[in-house]
Amino acid sequence: MSNDNLIKVTVWNEYGDAQKAPAVTRVYPQGLHETIAGFLNKDPEIEAQTAVLEDREQGLSEAVLDNTDVLIWWGHVYHDKVEDKTAQQVIDRVHRGMGIIFLHSAHKSKPFMSLLGASGRLCWREANEKTRVWTAAPGHPIAAGIPENFVIDHEEMYGEPFGIPQPQCTVFISWFQGGNVFRSGVTFQKEYGRAFYFQPGHETNPTYHHEIVQRVIVNAVKWAKPVIKVGPLNCPNVQSLEKLE
Amino acid sequence: MSNDNLIKVTVWNEYGDAQKAPAVTRVYPQGLHETIAGFLNKDPEIEAQTAVLEDREQGLSEAVLDNTDVLIWWGHVYHDKVEDKTAQQVIDRVHRGMGIIFLHSAHKSKPFMSLLGASGRLCWREANEKTRVWTAAPGHPIAAGIPENFVIDHEEMYGEPFGIPQPQCTVFISWFQGGNVFRSGVTFQKEYGRAFYFQPGHETNPTYHHEIVQRVIVNAVKWAKPVIKVGPLNCPNVQSLEKLE
Amino acid sequence: MSNDNLIKVTVWNEYGDAQKAPAVTRVYPQGLHETIAGFLNKDPEIEAQTAVLEDREQGLSEAVLDNTDVLIWWGHVYHDKVEDKTAQQVIDRVHRGMGIIFLHSAHKSKPFMSLLGASGRLCWREANEKTRVWTAAPGHPIAAGIPENFVIDHEEMYGEPFGIPQPQCTVFISWFQGGNVFRSGVTFQKEYGRAFYFQPGHETNPTYHHEIVQRVIVNAVKWAKPVIKVGPLNCPNVQSLEKLE
Amino acid sequence: MSNDNLIKVTVWNEYGDAQKAPAVTRVYPQGLHETIAGFLNKDPEIEAQTAVLEDREQGLSEAVLDNTDVLIWWGHVYHDKVEDKTAQQVIDRVHRGMGIIFLHSAHKSKPFMSLLGASGRLCWREANEKTRVWTAAPGHPIAAGIPENFVIDHEEMYGEPFGIPQPQCTVFISWFQGGNVFRSGVTFQKEYGRAFYFQPGHETNPTYHHEIVQRVIVNAVKWAKPVIKVGPLNCPNVQSLEKLE
Repeated sequence: MSNDNLIKVTVWNEYGDAQKAPAVTRVYPQGLHETIAGFLNKDPEIEAQTAVLEDREQGLSEAVLDNTDVLIWWGHVYHDKVEDKTAQQVIDRVHRGMGIIFLHSAHKSKPFMSLLGASGRLCWREANEKTRVWTAAPGHPIAAGIPENFVIDHEEMYGEPFGIPQPQCTVFISWFQGGNVFRSGVTFQKEYGRAFYFQPGHETNPTYHHEIVQRVIVNAVKWAKPVIKVGPLNCPNVQSLEKLE
Repeated sequence: MSNDNLIKVTVWNEYGDAQKAPAVTRVYPQGLHETIAGFLNKDPEIEAQTAVLEDREQGLSEAVLDNTDVLIWWGHVYHDKVEDKTAQQVIDRVHRGMGIIFLHSAHKSKPFMSLLGASGRLCWREANEKTRVWTAAPGHPIAAGIPENFVIDHEEMYGEPFGIPQPQCTVFISWFQGGNVFRSGVTFQKEYGRAFYFQPGHETNPTYHHEIVQRVIVNAVKWAKPVIKVGPLNCPNVQSLEKLE
Repeated sequence: MSNDNLIKVTVWNEYGDAQKAPAVTRVYPQGLHETIAGFLNKDPEIEAQTAVLEDREQGLSEAVLDNTDVLIWWGHVYHDKVEDKTAQQVIDRVHRGMGIIFLHSAHKSKPFMSLLGASGRLCWREANEKTRVWTAAPGHPIAAGIPENFVIDHEEMYGEPFGIPQPQCTVFISWFQGGNVFRSGVTFQKEYGRAFYFQPGHETNPTYHHEIVQRVIVNAVKWAKPVIKVGPLNCPNVQSLEKLE
Repeated sequence: MSNDNLIKVTVWNEYGDAQKAPAVTRVYPQGLHETIAGFLNKDPEIEAQTAVLEDREQGLSEAVLDNTDVLIWWGHVYHDKVEDKTAQQVIDRVHRGMGIIFLHSAHKSKPFMSLLGASGRLCWREANEKTRVWTAAPGHPIAAGIPENFVIDHEEMYGEPFGIPQPQCTVFISWFQGGNVFRSGVTFQKEYGRAFYFQPGHETNPTYHHEIVQRVIVNAVKWAKPVIKVGPLNCPNVQSLEKLE
């Protein structure tokens, strides 16, 4: 089936009560995960499904993970409700080749902090302020077709210092109207898998309807798709290849 | 007190029954942690104490961590007995400035895997084989005074592929007589803290009595000492610095 | 023309008198550049041509470079004959997106040393010794289909310390029978372009006839193909985007 | 002599006619190199001298370089007057352990471009605009004692994309009032030597009189001082360490 050539994306969203308030549903009536899956599914190379915290096995059963090439993660208020076991399975899959894209407030999620070995700390401000995203690495595949800079009219500010290890590539750096700057698009290689963090996406702002933001996420999915996926990474006892004295 | 200028090291060892068998006590009668603390304490800049899994709060109470600039970690058989809470406290302290040195089988310890976001996978062989450690980064402070290469007559083999993120510096690469190679000394920067992994040190081999191995560990302690130590890294809500329209 | 989808490779070889001696022509009758171009051209995605130092403009005219997606460089005895201008054009093209693969003794070539800002120093031994190449990063695209390790029966030894900046990825590490180890496959990102160094390939050994070596080079070409190619990178004077007080 | 414990700094400035115009001498009557050497010499651990392009051997004779632990480089209008030989000697010294600090417009100097293998491209604007420098890596020694952010009232804007390889550490990121952002403080390890680029310092602005800027440069000197300095890095022919069959 030609279907097998598609990049299978699972868009995971905590989607708790906080996202069912009018301030959010006005922008994302079905939840922001559906908006994201919606624009991804317009790309002929991608097949996106959604999963939420309330689903069976927190939306991330073995069957779902087996069918996922790239996982997108959005969480904020309910990070603690994600079980350690769920987080560990996600990390294990990334080590084995699954790509992962962390959006916005995922910087304090269990998978983000454990996969990067990071505190995820930053400073923030909710002031619906203007942000300008600069492309610092225009040669990176995630920046393909993205202009030198672009504006999001209203966003939550996230500012440096950002508690992450040195990225493999700093693709985007954002400026916020209130004066702060932030490494807003950063990549990491985690054994077989690729990870990308992207800052924009406060739940009450229509950020995921922004055409350039959508293009960044589509690019990131294509960049993060597995080179290969492998089984569990263990520590085999092996024989000598050369003669031991 | 001049004491305050000393680098405070805590040498942590699981030190369970497996290390009280004759094959180990013959080499390390008081436990390898005491051997390591012993040679560290010969250095006038270092003050080393020891801690073991059986101690109160698994040897790593707030009071112990408050008094630790650099933590050395040796564990193997009892990784699972280390509580998640203990591991998380160690990681948190590294983010806040404490240095950490992971020795040998610590590659599968909870602090190693979570701090590096790594599987820690590798292949291994217990054949008491010769290993030759090559200095790949002779300009790194950890390599100060270390020869171009040195031999350990009998060691456990650890071989590539090693499940770690790309190191900040690959200081040492080992060859084993059976034909394998391994990045045996690698550094990482984790927010305020520095981390070093060093492969030699199987518990039944007298590796920590080896003069050059001791020199590497002393160098690593001096390199990993905190630039500064800070309080908990959180996410403050901050005011605008420039006028918002 | 469907031709436009092919990856255009130029295999550059100094190909001086030293390579026309019987010890070399016995292995590479037409020069090793022809052998390399030959196996590359068997891949349906690649179109390879060759160029040598004696060609007009040292084989690297604007027209040739305009038609090159990935440049492969083999040089040894005649590094100094490569004009600074030629080297600078190559570097400039890499910055602008062209991929480059440095083979074997290219570690002391002008493009290698200037592009990496490296001394290229290493130690060496011509003893036709066995080398075993270990795949340290099995998840990297260059390692696709490459076994955990493979043997080349007779090669020149290159050993650590290798004078390079910290690689983006250490894909391969080699062991040589005489006891040395070497980071034998390393990648670098240089603005828009990608660079790969691969150690095997002494001119009197049939290394480029080795099936796995060929697979590595084919993989490297596909990995190094430009994401995009851009014009000269200059420093434009730009207008303000926000109001200046 | 206790003198031997001092860090020997040479502050090199092109100091051509362009720096002898009133717009510059009003701020730096003796040249900015003298201002920089002046504040460095107030630190009890540092001994700074100056050198300029017009000096014998372009100010960088073997004797000067032999007596330099850390070289500071300021150049702008006369990059092309620096001989290739001079640039090459500087690079060679860095490989062998000398630290180097590139200031402001040194991003297009020969030593910068060859040592980093970089185009050095960026965008710029001379509008005496406000810049706010953010400390992205507060745990780095160069950030010791530097506040979370600080303002320089009037500076030349340098903006992304900045043509450099991925830094070892991004210590500072600047925002400019006109809307641009820039990785304004970045570190690199080049074999035995350390390199730091720092953006502030347009010649008609009093930037090097700014107390925090001075502190950054003092910190950078201490960070960049050699771990060890070694002789020329060459490629020795070596004997086998293990028996060859």
